Amino acid sequence: MFRVRWSSWRQTQPDDRRKIVGEASDALRRMEERGEGGQSAFFSLIGHKGDLMLVHFRRSPDELNRVEQAIAGLRLGDFLAQTTSYLSVVELGLYELSLRLYSELGERGLAVGGAEWRQAIDEELTRQRRAEDARLWPEIPGCRYGCFYPMSKFRGEEKNWYRLPLAERQAMMRAHGMIGRKYASQVTQIISGSIGLDDWEWGVDLFADDPLVFKKVVQEMRFDEASANYGLFGSFFVGLRRSAAELGALLAIPDPTS
Amino acid sequence: MFRVRWSSWRQTQPDDRRKIVGEASDALRRMEERGEGGQSAFFSLIGHKGDLMLVHFRRSPDELNRVEQAIAGLRLGDFLAQTTSYLSVVELGLYELSLRLYSELGERGLAVGGAEWRQAIDEELTRQRRAEDARLWPEIPGCRYGCFYPMSKFRGEEKNWYRLPLAERQAMMRAHGMIGRKYASQVTQIISGSIGLDDWEWGVDLFADDPLVFKKVVQEMRFDEASANYGLFGSFFVGLRRSAAELGALLAIPDPTS
Amino acid sequence: MFRVRWSSWRQTQPDDRRKIVGEASDALRRMEERGEGGQSAFFSLIGHKGDLMLVHFRRSPDELNRVEQAIAGLRLGDFLAQTTSYLSVVELGLYELSLRLYSELGERGLAVGGAEWRQAIDEELTRQRRAEDARLWPEIPGCRYGCFYPMSKFRGEEKNWYRLPLAERQAMMRAHGMIGRKYASQVTQIISGSIGLDDWEWGVDLFADDPLVFKKVVQEMRFDEASANYGLFGSFFVGLRRSAAELGALLAIPDPTS
Amino acid sequence: MFRVRWSSWRQTQPDDRRKIVGEASDALRRMEERGEGGQSAFFSLIGHKGDLMLVHFRRSPDELNRVEQAIAGLRLGDFLAQTTSYLSVVELGLYELSLRLYSELGERGLAVGGAEWRQAIDEELTRQRRAEDARLWPEIPGCRYGCFYPMSKFRGEEKNWYRLPLAERQAMMRAHGMIGRKYASQVTQIISGSIGLDDWEWGVDLFADDPLVFKKVVQEMRFDEASANYGLFGSFFVGLRRSAAELGALLAIPDPTS
Amino acid sequence: MFRVRWSSWRQTQPDDRRKIVGEASDALRRMEERGEGGQSAFFSLIGHKGDLMLVHFRRSPDELNRVEQAIAGLRLGDFLAQTTSYLSVVELGLYELSLRLYSELGERGLAVGGAEWRQAIDEELTRQRRAEDARLWPEIPGCRYGCFYPMSKFRGEEKNWYRLPLAERQAMMRAHGMIGRKYASQVTQIISGSIGLDDWEWGVDLFADDPLVFKKVVQEMRFDEASANYGLFGSFFVGLRRSAAELGALLAIPDPTS
Repeated sequence: MFRVRWSSWRQTQPDDRRKIVGEASDALRRMEERGEGGQSAFFSLIGHKGDLMLVHFRRSPDELNRVEQAIAGLRLGDFLAQTTSYLSVVELGLYELSLRLYSELGERGLAVGGAEWRQAIDEELTRQRRAEDARLWPEIPGCRYGCFYPMSKFRGEEKNWYRLPLAERQAMMRAHGMIGRKYASQVTQIISGSIGLDDWEWGVDLFADDPLVFKKVVQEMRFDEASANYGLFGSFFVGLRRSAAELGALLAIPDPTS
Repeated sequence: MFRVRWSSWRQTQPDDRRKIVGEASDALRRMEERGEGGQSAFFSLIGHKGDLMLVHFRRSPDELNRVEQAIAGLRLGDFLAQTTSYLSVVELGLYELSLRLYSELGERGLAVGGAEWRQAIDEELTRQRRAEDARLWPEIPGCRYGCFYPMSKFRGEEKNWYRLPLAERQAMMRAHGMIGRKYASQVTQIISGSIGLDDWEWGVDLFADDPLVFKKVVQEMRFDEASANYGLFGSFFVGLRRSAAELGALLAIPDPTS
Repeated sequence: MFRVRWSSWRQTQPDDRRKIVGEASDALRRMEERGEGGQSAFFSLIGHKGDLMLVHFRRSPDELNRVEQAIAGLRLGDFLAQTTSYLSVVELGLYELSLRLYSELGERGLAVGGAEWRQAIDEELTRQRRAEDARLWPEIPGCRYGCFYPMSKFRGEEKNWYRLPLAERQAMMRAHGMIGRKYASQVTQIISGSIGLDDWEWGVDLFADDPLVFKKVVQEMRFDEASANYGLFGSFFVGLRRSAAELGALLAIPDPTS
Repeated sequence: MFRVRWSSWRQTQPDDRRKIVGEASDALRRMEERGEGGQSAFFSLIGHKGDLMLVHFRRSPDELNRVEQAIAGLRLGDFLAQTTSYLSVVELGLYELSLRLYSELGERGLAVGGAEWRQAIDEELTRQRRAEDARLWPEIPGCRYGCFYPMSKFRGEEKNWYRLPLAERQAMMRAHGMIGRKYASQVTQIISGSIGLDDWEWGVDLFADDPLVFKKVVQEMRFDEASANYGLFGSFFVGLRRSAAELGALLAIPDPTS
Repeated sequence: MFRVRWSSWRQTQPDDRRKIVGEASDALRRMEERGEGGQSAFFSLIGHKGDLMLVHFRRSPDELNRVEQAIAGLRLGDFLAQTTSYLSVVELGLYELSLRLYSELGERGLAVGGAEWRQAIDEELTRQRRAEDARLWPEIPGCRYGCFYPMSKFRGEEKNWYRLPLAERQAMMRAHGMIGRKYASQVTQIISGSIGLDDWEWGVDLFADDPLVFKKVVQEMRFDEASANYGLFGSFFVGLRRSAAELGALLAIPDPTS
């Protein structure tokens, strides 16, 4: 997330501004195109939390690091102040899978947590991961609005997500997922995990053409057991999708009389 | 919310200041006029949290985004530092409505959460929304004082708003609403929802001609069950309503001897 | 609360500094004089939380707003950074009064919360307020030291001030008040309410000639039930009272060899 | 605590730097000498929390205020940014004393909290204070390392230090003190109280020649009941003692190749 | 952790930049070499928390302080803003050891906490420490990725790590350690203690060639009793290992068109 330093920007000569925008929008356009290396998108954020939100889907931290440096190296970088960021990795919702797998392994008589059991799980996960490559390396939906927020699961003295039996967690996540499914045609949801990577446990990206859907889906979920009892939420960032070609318009010194 | 950079402002030539104020107050005046696109109001805030509070009622995030950019584009923008902001959407208090509707649907034998039930609810909400257009798209009351604060409902280990039965929440909200109603002639209250949009669950705007009423109504409410047990409150912002025409006086370099 | 920008201040020509101090101390002197419009006092704060604390007692937010703008408009304002502020309104401790009044109204057979009951309470409060005008519009004591801190009452899952019966709260506040009374000759305490106005529920101003008294009274109170169980405390600000005439000495670039 | 503005400092002419250091180290040397007015010490802090920690033992807030202004007035002040500070007053651990005194007063038949009882306590405290002048006005130990942290006692819904009987608090503090005593030859501990003065309830200064002792003593204490159940801790600041004469070396622009 | 001031850096002449990088990478190279004095490593951080993470393993705070000053003294220091830091000391996991030792001492009939008992423990610890010198003064693993986070143990009203019997803590730490052991071939974990030294109780350094392993190990641990019930976590910092020779490339003003 970046804030534009409007005051320095306004003091820059129009001609320089044009060149700086040109350089930056060329760079962003290349990032927008989905290739092997991944895909980026940018959003015009609403409110004081930032003016721009850049979303980068990449295959490794090295590539994210390269993107960061490319942006820092843009002349436009002098007019941007980074307000925050989030690092996470897309993961498949494995609750359903796990339950099925665990039953099978139990039937095959493997000891839970033993070497064979762990190997069987690793193999199954690897197999699933290949099959679900498209879910692991999603493209950024072309919706008009984007919403990002980080979240964690509550660990209190009485209520503690991480001390619940797997079956209970699974049942709650299934009910939680049902709400997501009801809104599936209206909102695309990409969940990424960040335990060990960033300050919350997950990052959530929502993409929709109607921004009210963000409110509807998150509000309805707040009443399900998984969220009501165990959901902790960080800051919410809402923005309008922009294309690299629109960067100039976004950074135009608008005519206040219009 | 914006802080004025008084030091840079004072260093600006009087003639420039006049032009900058002229440009900004023209822009604000157009925003103050209520049209299809919405309406804005501005307040002179008290205390260090900011000097100006701009309140924008708009029909979409796109229009809010446009307003943000228009203000960033004002030459006055160089003398303003944004301290905070809040994004939320006006919603109708649907507890009463929901209860009545739920009873009816039950009598009609519709299964709770089923497709028919959801459709009936959507239809009713749509119908209500049309009827209550004025409440959904309110105008900004012309009172002398404004107060804004965000709030959420508590989710603790024992007490958790989102785990209470609807009827209990409804009863508490009705009692809570009674207090609001007692003060209805003294204060106009506009509740907006922000789950999925910003960092708290609601934003509350109060408008009154007597600023002590803000204290009276919020204090009396603190003792009702909904607030005492479940109300979490963010920062409170209190300001004096100003018109675009008063911007010059507000930004005048005052004569300290007067 | 303001921090002095010593570095810019030192770079200012001695002659300019003299004029800037003259202008500011003239303005402060007028504010120090107690008139219809209120009274101000200033303190040299100890520690990093600020260098100056300005305390303004005024009759309305409009007048506080005017004071703020007058200070922002001082040339000295360019050398001050506002670190924090607090907005609150002096209120009478009405627990004793309320109890007596409620008994009377009960004896007169008025229904609690009914129209007649509310009217009787409003009338009594109005009557009391007139009689206690001096307490409502206090002057700023001329003590050598000042201490300010904001506070709120705790609302936990088990212990919740706002869910206690009035009689219990009253008994605790009476015991709490007894401690204040023991120190009455050593410290003047001005309680002001800020529910609906600022981020805590009360602001507390203490004025004393012996700064250790601040520690003694607050520490003794920490053990009473009202504070121990229900008191939440914000930042404490301690300063030395200065007169407008001392502003020059306070802002003098001191000779470090002395 | 102060951070050095290295960038501005490096841009200053070597000759100016010499004069500025000379002026500052002269001032610090006078503060280091223990006199009637008190004594100061300075430390080179480790980490981002600051570069310098100045510890001032003084007899009154007025003298602390004077020290603050003397430092702000140093030309070196332009190259220092104050990051934090703490205000507290040395107090004797009166638990032992209180218990003995309370028993005596009980035997003399004085009513707890009555006028005579309070007078007897005040007299005893005054007598003790005179006798223990050296503990009240300690000198700053000449150890190589210093550690400062603020702390408070926990007030939860179940566990609340301030609601425990005096005898229980006393027993816990005695056990806590035993740990301190075991380390007495390795670490000097100066406890100061700050209820009513700053944002935590106590400030703790530790002085030792072996910095690992800070970890050992604080860690061992974390397991005693007083700390484990009731100790809340703020930031920890660890630094190396420096003399005024070393200020130049500390602020030298080091040769990075050495 | 440091943020690069890209804007000032870009404004520096290429020739100057070359010299500044040369000076800094010479200094870093000397720190990278493992000697008696310790060893340093640097990482390119991902996200807004900083651009560079410098990890310094040293034998004393004095040497850490010297490193800090050496870096502040680099001309590159003018282009770096320190965002945070952490001070801690490597400690051996002594739970296993303690249990064995305590049993032995019990069998020898020594009173727990007595002088003889303490001496026996000190001797054993000293003996162990010598034997485990390599664990106490580890070298920095040469992995491609590094992860740092601070953590503390929970002390709540019901659940309180520091009030549990040693045997219980030991059992939980053994189960916790088992997870670490499973990942031993994939991740090197260096635990350091910071009670009394910094704001959390431990610092954790993870080093791995596959960054997903950070997520796997921390996530699996979140479910063990020690972490799920008692683990409190600070910010997570993830970076790519860089050598001093790569500093130039890292600080190159990248060509945005590439």
